[in-house]
Amino acid sequence: MKISVVGVGQTKFGQSRKDISDLMLEACEKALASANASVDQIDAFYIGNFSSSFTDQCHLPAVLASRLSVNKEITRVESACAAGGLAFKEAVLAILSGLYRTVLVVGVEKMSDKSVETATKILATAGSKEEMAHGATFPSLYALMAQRYFFEYGANERVLAKVAVKNHKNALHNPVAQFHKRITVEDVLRSRMVALPLKLLDCSPISDGAAAVVLCAEKWAWKFTDKPLRLAGIGHEVEAIELFMRKDLTSMPAVVRAAQKAYTMAGIEPRKVDVAEVHDCFTIAELIQIEDLGFCKKGEAKNMVDQGRTEMGGEIPINPSGGLKAKGHPIGASGVAQVVEIFYQLRSEAGKRQVKNARVGLCSNLGGAGSTSVVSIFVL
Amino acid sequence: MKISVVGVGQTKFGQSRKDISDLMLEACEKALASANASVDQIDAFYIGNFSSSFTDQCHLPAVLASRLSVNKEITRVESACAAGGLAFKEAVLAILSGLYRTVLVVGVEKMSDKSVETATKILATAGSKEEMAHGATFPSLYALMAQRYFFEYGANERVLAKVAVKNHKNALHNPVAQFHKRITVEDVLRSRMVALPLKLLDCSPISDGAAAVVLCAEKWAWKFTDKPLRLAGIGHEVEAIELFMRKDLTSMPAVVRAAQKAYTMAGIEPRKVDVAEVHDCFTIAELIQIEDLGFCKKGEAKNMVDQGRTEMGGEIPINPSGGLKAKGHPIGASGVAQVVEIFYQLRSEAGKRQVKNARVGLCSNLGGAGSTSVVSIFVL
Repeated sequence: MKISVVGVGQTKFGQSRKDISDLMLEACEKALASANASVDQIDAFYIGNFSSSFTDQCHLPAVLASRLSVNKEITRVESACAAGGLAFKEAVLAILSGLYRTVLVVGVEKMSDKSVETATKILATAGSKEEMAHGATFPSLYALMAQRYFFEYGANERVLAKVAVKNHKNALHNPVAQFHKRITVEDVLRSRMVALPLKLLDCSPISDGAAAVVLCAEKWAWKFTDKPLRLAGIGHEVEAIELFMRKDLTSMPAVVRAAQKAYTMAGIEPRKVDVAEVHDCFTIAELIQIEDLGFCKKGEAKNMVDQGRTEMGGEIPINPSGGLKAKGHPIGASGVAQVVEIFYQLRSEAGKRQVKNARVGLCSNLGGAGSTSVVSIFVL
Repeated sequence: MKISVVGVGQTKFGQSRKDISDLMLEACEKALASANASVDQIDAFYIGNFSSSFTDQCHLPAVLASRLSVNKEITRVESACAAGGLAFKEAVLAILSGLYRTVLVVGVEKMSDKSVETATKILATAGSKEEMAHGATFPSLYALMAQRYFFEYGANERVLAKVAVKNHKNALHNPVAQFHKRITVEDVLRSRMVALPLKLLDCSPISDGAAAVVLCAEKWAWKFTDKPLRLAGIGHEVEAIELFMRKDLTSMPAVVRAAQKAYTMAGIEPRKVDVAEVHDCFTIAELIQIEDLGFCKKGEAKNMVDQGRTEMGGEIPINPSGGLKAKGHPIGASGVAQVVEIFYQLRSEAGKRQVKNARVGLCSNLGGAGSTSVVSIFVL
């Protein structure tokens, strides 16, 4: 892969008064500034966005053209909550095609215009219509995974709670995070039940926000920065949308395969990863991905979490940004925001949340109940 | 461009009892059969789909994975009504990236699940929120273009009607067309006024349907067919979503630039095009594109249409398939269905609607009021 990330930008995540076009524009302008680039230097744009039902606005490519005052090639990409990671992948393909030198990817979602009830319905469109017709929602699908994980490997609600506590703690040092609120295991356990065993504080929030990154062919990176991130490998996999089609609820096969592709392409082994941003839409999702990404053997993630080995200063710090749980989860933005965090981490620009000696970073972005997976690996 | 189209497939367009996943599956299976390919030979899939609000189903990549029983790289692409053409472009980039040999593109929309009123609202999400808030709809935006075109170039409602009459006539010989109904200029003029001067029969219908094509790197085309279509050039442009930003309402600058790119890439001049599928969402759109695609000088399209030079047997037959007007316009499918028709035409497989000696074919796919344009040129 001869692809470099040369600049990043992100809005504050949380509830915003800005509309979706304002959010996109802010993230784009910050990423351009970070890359010391003018908009004229960008050959093509990719937008990651989950659902136009949140804003009643399709045709975001033309909206972005208006806001940036450009006539360019702009494309929107979607695969549920992996929209951002997938837009990043499409930008990579665009550069590899040889038709473009420099591409900007912006992920965005403006969710708070709708009520929580409506937002829940829109989120459910990422799942199987058959399963949703039987009463499933995303919390309940992930709850099934948690129950089975507990049964198979003896984890429990306290372990899940520790994932949320860690991510909230990390977010305290992330100025753009939605929550700057320290929580305890007891807080999580006492929070409102959503779908047994997942409680409110096991779930990522509804958020507004955007994140953007500027990519270019490696040979042009010097024009923008003397510290480009190199994309070492990327993997993308999609499998059946129905959870009932999955043989083992304690693993997400799409993640396993996407990670294998990314590791193989990068020539890097899981144990070489120094820092990871992992799609923690629900605490159980982080636990399962720790295993599916190869950071430990099957059934051992509960010990890793319980022993603090994924905390800052631990064996492999996961979600130093605060993750979806505490940084926030504006759906289409999340996969791009993961790359933003890894950019800061590998360049040692993450301030108080800096992972020491971080040389290899990984992003894992999920769609739906893990039916879509995009995994990317970066080195400085 | 070393890209070949080696197989195509399409469902019947019109109102369908099938759901969106059935429609996708049928088009994919037909395209695979046409390419003599098994699904295992496809490395990646691209889906063109406009709005999940029609079906309350996002995450179509995972839906397609379920229906095809595959674990593959599947991506949904959207830029309003150009979703299909843009999915085709992304598939081209994917092959050019060198990471994939063979890619399938499927465009789909299932619109009839919603009422006409709801569908009209969903369609309006492809436009500027500001313009729509002031009462605009797509018929009224295209009506403004028509009024200005009449004022500038002296065309009239009879000329527009002739576009609809021609496309309905062509559709009589297309078995998958939504309408098999001959209409006259008087029928169009007498049909219900929608937005002055556009009447019901100037407008494309609400449709269900899917279309699919199989692409591969040219060097592998022999594995699938001895008559591959070669993609000679492709252009994509996006400009501001607001119509009020356009200096001249009688032209779509995105189409002009996308076409220039495609012609330059192909090394082909407009006068060499033998047959074209042109995005006639409204009759005026076909008239304007005849000029923007370079088939005649500015202001002369009205004469071309009036004199029958775009009819079968004319100087350049446009929309032998029946176009969006009569073949139907399942939004995300339309850009892909254009490629399907050109495939048949250049291979002399179009039966009673065959354009004689068709060696160069062009597709022009629009998004919104022409803010997105994808133009592609094919040769046998």
